[in-house]
Amino acid sequence: MHGINDIARPPFDLIRELSAYDSATVHEAYGGRGALDSALKPLDKRMKVCGPAATVSARPGDNLILHKAIYVAVKGDVLVVSTGGYVEAGPWGEIMTLAAQEQGICGLVIDGSVRDSNAIRELRFPVFSRGVCIKGTTKDTLGTINYPIQIGGIAVHPGDAVLGDADGVVAVAARDLPGVLEKCHQRKEKEEKIREQLKKWKSTLELYGFDKILQAKGFKES
Amino acid sequence: MHGINDIARPPFDLIRELSAYDSATVHEAYGGRGALDSALKPLDKRMKVCGPAATVSARPGDNLILHKAIYVAVKGDVLVVSTGGYVEAGPWGEIMTLAAQEQGICGLVIDGSVRDSNAIRELRFPVFSRGVCIKGTTKDTLGTINYPIQIGGIAVHPGDAVLGDADGVVAVAARDLPGVLEKCHQRKEKEEKIREQLKKWKSTLELYGFDKILQAKGFKES
Amino acid sequence: MHGINDIARPPFDLIRELSAYDSATVHEAYGGRGALDSALKPLDKRMKVCGPAATVSARPGDNLILHKAIYVAVKGDVLVVSTGGYVEAGPWGEIMTLAAQEQGICGLVIDGSVRDSNAIRELRFPVFSRGVCIKGTTKDTLGTINYPIQIGGIAVHPGDAVLGDADGVVAVAARDLPGVLEKCHQRKEKEEKIREQLKKWKSTLELYGFDKILQAKGFKES
Amino acid sequence: MHGINDIARPPFDLIRELSAYDSATVHEAYGGRGALDSALKPLDKRMKVCGPAATVSARPGDNLILHKAIYVAVKGDVLVVSTGGYVEAGPWGEIMTLAAQEQGICGLVIDGSVRDSNAIRELRFPVFSRGVCIKGTTKDTLGTINYPIQIGGIAVHPGDAVLGDADGVVAVAARDLPGVLEKCHQRKEKEEKIREQLKKWKSTLELYGFDKILQAKGFKES
Amino acid sequence: MHGINDIARPPFDLIRELSAYDSATVHEAYGGRGALDSALKPLDKRMKVCGPAATVSARPGDNLILHKAIYVAVKGDVLVVSTGGYVEAGPWGEIMTLAAQEQGICGLVIDGSVRDSNAIRELRFPVFSRGVCIKGTTKDTLGTINYPIQIGGIAVHPGDAVLGDADGVVAVAARDLPGVLEKCHQRKEKEEKIREQLKKWKSTLELYGFDKILQAKGFKES
Amino acid sequence: MHGINDIARPPFDLIRELSAYDSATVHEAYGGRGALDSALKPLDKRMKVCGPAATVSARPGDNLILHKAIYVAVKGDVLVVSTGGYVEAGPWGEIMTLAAQEQGICGLVIDGSVRDSNAIRELRFPVFSRGVCIKGTTKDTLGTINYPIQIGGIAVHPGDAVLGDADGVVAVAARDLPGVLEKCHQRKEKEEKIREQLKKWKSTLELYGFDKILQAKGFKES
Repeated sequence: MHGINDIARPPFDLIRELSAYDSATVHEAYGGRGALDSALKPLDKRMKVCGPAATVSARPGDNLILHKAIYVAVKGDVLVVSTGGYVEAGPWGEIMTLAAQEQGICGLVIDGSVRDSNAIRELRFPVFSRGVCIKGTTKDTLGTINYPIQIGGIAVHPGDAVLGDADGVVAVAARDLPGVLEKCHQRKEKEEKIREQLKKWKSTLELYGFDKILQAKGFKES
Repeated sequence: MHGINDIARPPFDLIRELSAYDSATVHEAYGGRGALDSALKPLDKRMKVCGPAATVSARPGDNLILHKAIYVAVKGDVLVVSTGGYVEAGPWGEIMTLAAQEQGICGLVIDGSVRDSNAIRELRFPVFSRGVCIKGTTKDTLGTINYPIQIGGIAVHPGDAVLGDADGVVAVAARDLPGVLEKCHQRKEKEEKIREQLKKWKSTLELYGFDKILQAKGFKES
Repeated sequence: MHGINDIARPPFDLIRELSAYDSATVHEAYGGRGALDSALKPLDKRMKVCGPAATVSARPGDNLILHKAIYVAVKGDVLVVSTGGYVEAGPWGEIMTLAAQEQGICGLVIDGSVRDSNAIRELRFPVFSRGVCIKGTTKDTLGTINYPIQIGGIAVHPGDAVLGDADGVVAVAARDLPGVLEKCHQRKEKEEKIREQLKKWKSTLELYGFDKILQAKGFKES
Repeated sequence: MHGINDIARPPFDLIRELSAYDSATVHEAYGGRGALDSALKPLDKRMKVCGPAATVSARPGDNLILHKAIYVAVKGDVLVVSTGGYVEAGPWGEIMTLAAQEQGICGLVIDGSVRDSNAIRELRFPVFSRGVCIKGTTKDTLGTINYPIQIGGIAVHPGDAVLGDADGVVAVAARDLPGVLEKCHQRKEKEEKIREQLKKWKSTLELYGFDKILQAKGFKES
Repeated sequence: MHGINDIARPPFDLIRELSAYDSATVHEAYGGRGALDSALKPLDKRMKVCGPAATVSARPGDNLILHKAIYVAVKGDVLVVSTGGYVEAGPWGEIMTLAAQEQGICGLVIDGSVRDSNAIRELRFPVFSRGVCIKGTTKDTLGTINYPIQIGGIAVHPGDAVLGDADGVVAVAARDLPGVLEKCHQRKEKEEKIREQLKKWKSTLELYGFDKILQAKGFKES
Repeated sequence: MHGINDIARPPFDLIRELSAYDSATVHEAYGGRGALDSALKPLDKRMKVCGPAATVSARPGDNLILHKAIYVAVKGDVLVVSTGGYVEAGPWGEIMTLAAQEQGICGLVIDGSVRDSNAIRELRFPVFSRGVCIKGTTKDTLGTINYPIQIGGIAVHPGDAVLGDADGVVAVAARDLPGVLEKCHQRKEKEEKIREQLKKWKSTLELYGFDKILQAKGFKES
């Protein structure tokens, strides 16, 4: 069995490169894969996070394993926490944010709720959650750290590159990252050209060839 | 059959007049009609939109017909898009916003999600949606443009006046617009007087005659 | 039968003391009690409310009794309104906010929707609701004022101390307030010490003794 | 203004003809129109209803107008009731079912809840609702009878033919009914042939020509 | 502090009397109080339960305290279990049903899910829940037994009379039970008379006096 | 790249063995893994399905690829279809059921809706879905067959053993099946002994050792 402390993370320069793109671009570049449920959103629209996933599976309403995870994750990691989708408890708050920042953890993605939301915003710690809830948690139950988890409808493995911004969260398997970055680059270049063409009064119908699809399918204007 | 390009739109001065009111006032002036489901909300509380509806019916998760609609709608139109209420796809983003702004389209109302939300906010393009989602769309399937659609629980016809603000979205049939504007005006005047009376320590119970209703119904204070 | 005008309220200095804490702290200090459903949230993250509850039970989509309640509540009260959890109507708006402010009412907690949200934000009147909806209401049906109500999954009694902030809303029975304040104080002190220890590189595992629980339960690092 | 008692209903033989088809067939024959939200379902899978709509718009949690509607509707009508989608009240029960059966009303479609569900099942009165709820209603508020209503995401007009079965509910405008019946007939015939061909080991890919679509779109088997 | 084993239960003959009524009648006889959220429904429409509540508060996804509660409850009790409304775990199944039946417990009301639903139906043990889920539970966390709980939007105290049937669940405080039974009796008698009158072609409008309310409110037939 | 026709399936005798257990037992034997969202339920409580998964990823509201999948799947397979969780379309009905039965497909698991539910029940074809909806689908868009999919919150791979019954659906990776079956067997044996002990008036507290946990955690009876 692998140790929870020795997961494979993508090279830092790939993470840095990934952080230049937005979540929708990465999802598209990844062939429409890796997107978490749209209900997971940042506490503030300006929040952005990018890093390797330190994965956590916790029981709904219990945060014992989250405390441990703060000290298993390493500098630059994003905590990605599955908690059964339960939103009526807030297993993460200000104290844990301070502890995580001390450890160099760069953000949290959780399929439940958090609390102390104003304090977290002031600390500028990017949190992506399904809600905000004051209800407290027990500290009774084990979970897993750095095993594959199910969150937001998809599987996330420890070390997957996770990117979150105002639009949502996407995860990319470490081995797929170089290819995805190449596609992100191409997509951005293409979008830049489209933008220029739009300014010259070209239509998206021409630029993407949608006119022909519409015609082939027999779309009628009257 | 009518052509999709020749819908009847209300006179521009009525649209301009309508834009001075807020969505709740218009809904009330319209006899409690025209309100879309409250789940359709702007990407930013400061967003406001007002214009004739260019109606679109798209399949969930496919945006081919939306691209076409950008070029069927005319300057001043609001795209009003029914997409089956599906929120786990983002059929509208930054490129389409740029294209729509080139065409003079003044906003989007959609019963699904959009993406590139930060970019859309920066472009100050008013978008009213049920959510934000990065998941991509196909470009495979026809839909309708400028036919009556069902969106947010009500029917919207091409050319209906659509008004959206922080509180929600309301649609008014073109033929009803003059009467609604008259009622809006009266309502605003009445509210202004109520406001003045409130400052003079009159109660809403007196001002609206609720005291008598309470008494007639036998409300007891102890 | 008691009169609706003579409810027992906690002493003002206890309310003032309570207002210094946040909702999550009060919930914890209250032994994990008193939290309303997390769906009840302020119109603006900066809104905070604290005061004795003037409780109202209204029918979904009817606000007659809310108008009356404005004039039954006294200076400093928070209106706490159960309306059957119905979100597709907006029984509270700008005029009622103005009337409530004239009466010195310091906020509204409602398990339905409100409208005129931008105006309410500008008036800086703290409103905690499940949503924003323009749909109008009838003024036909009685309800109760200052009787115990069920809201957000819990029972709230007239005179209970209610505290709301960005994280949610909590209610404390008047008789329990002194004890809760004592616990809030202790909790804040303890948290302050934890914060200091975190800066000295202590872990939450040590500080809270979670290391021992993990060990006792047989958590394995590899 | 029209009287609420003199709505146009489709000829009875068309209603009888319609009742031979199922809701999905009618929806397809109607060009994919007329389907209500899938959340409206019968109290028993064996329930089926077919008749002209007597439309009712009621306030959430108030059933005064429903009582009136029982005596406005005529023999053979289906009561189609919009009640704001509110499910936490049961505005229809056993007594009203008995009264409706006395009047010859042949069923109820409602976007809220009902109660006395076992009694209704025993009375074999077809009810299509969003749920079952014991919570009582007021009798305070007017509504409309035999005006167009919004229900389950679509508009239903008085006299529209309404058909409900285990799969859901569909409404067809009276003027469209002859054409829809013709298409229903064709569709049934076609389906019958498909059924026979399936028994002869033909595939749906051949029978509907999907093989060619798949090929044209470049579907790869390996 | 009271012991969890010595709660006050209503006399058995009152429980037996209550069991003759249905949940909607009891809710009405109780002045519109006591109804739990309509989402709590029996596993089978024929299930009915009636007894004093043995109240349990459990953490979401943990059933340790439920096992204990089986042996704290006494013959004739109904287990009423708040589990934070979490439906993605099944803290109750066949083994616990067998154990409960050995103890003479006559049913379960839970705001979460259960599993082994077919076995429970075969054992004819009435279960009212929000769903059915196979996901397992931990046995790590304490809860409370026979303290007041919040469930389905209301407060239930140990010893409250709980009645559930196909329509839902209602709880009546022990001290209110005699009065409620009296009202139930009157209501049933009145309904019986209404039934007879309906057969004689009287309308509900006459029988309940709704005609006058409609007239007073100015309802127009044309 | 693998061909879609040559997926690895577990040996038939293991599938047959698995089919003797229920979904909750398998989930537990699998260490609490493999359970799909509890919203996926059979059309009839008596339905049970067990077989290797032929996985399909379809676009919401389009069933072209489902038709193809019927002819890619082989005798004994269960079609497991991800359709983006969209419930307002019915991409599967009677004709497809007949075609699937001709092919020997033994059931369908889908995270959307189906239609012709009565016909499907009569054909005794086990279908596990999120709902029933009459709304039609396009046949325009490709998808994948026999690639890993995300459904009901988890990943399912082609060839995984899928088991569904009244309680829900569970998926087991082919390689884990022998171990899971071993554990199922042990669990059933243990449960049988527990059942016998319960009849001898032993409590679950003794039988599972929960008494000691409660004591260790300091549970107080008074």
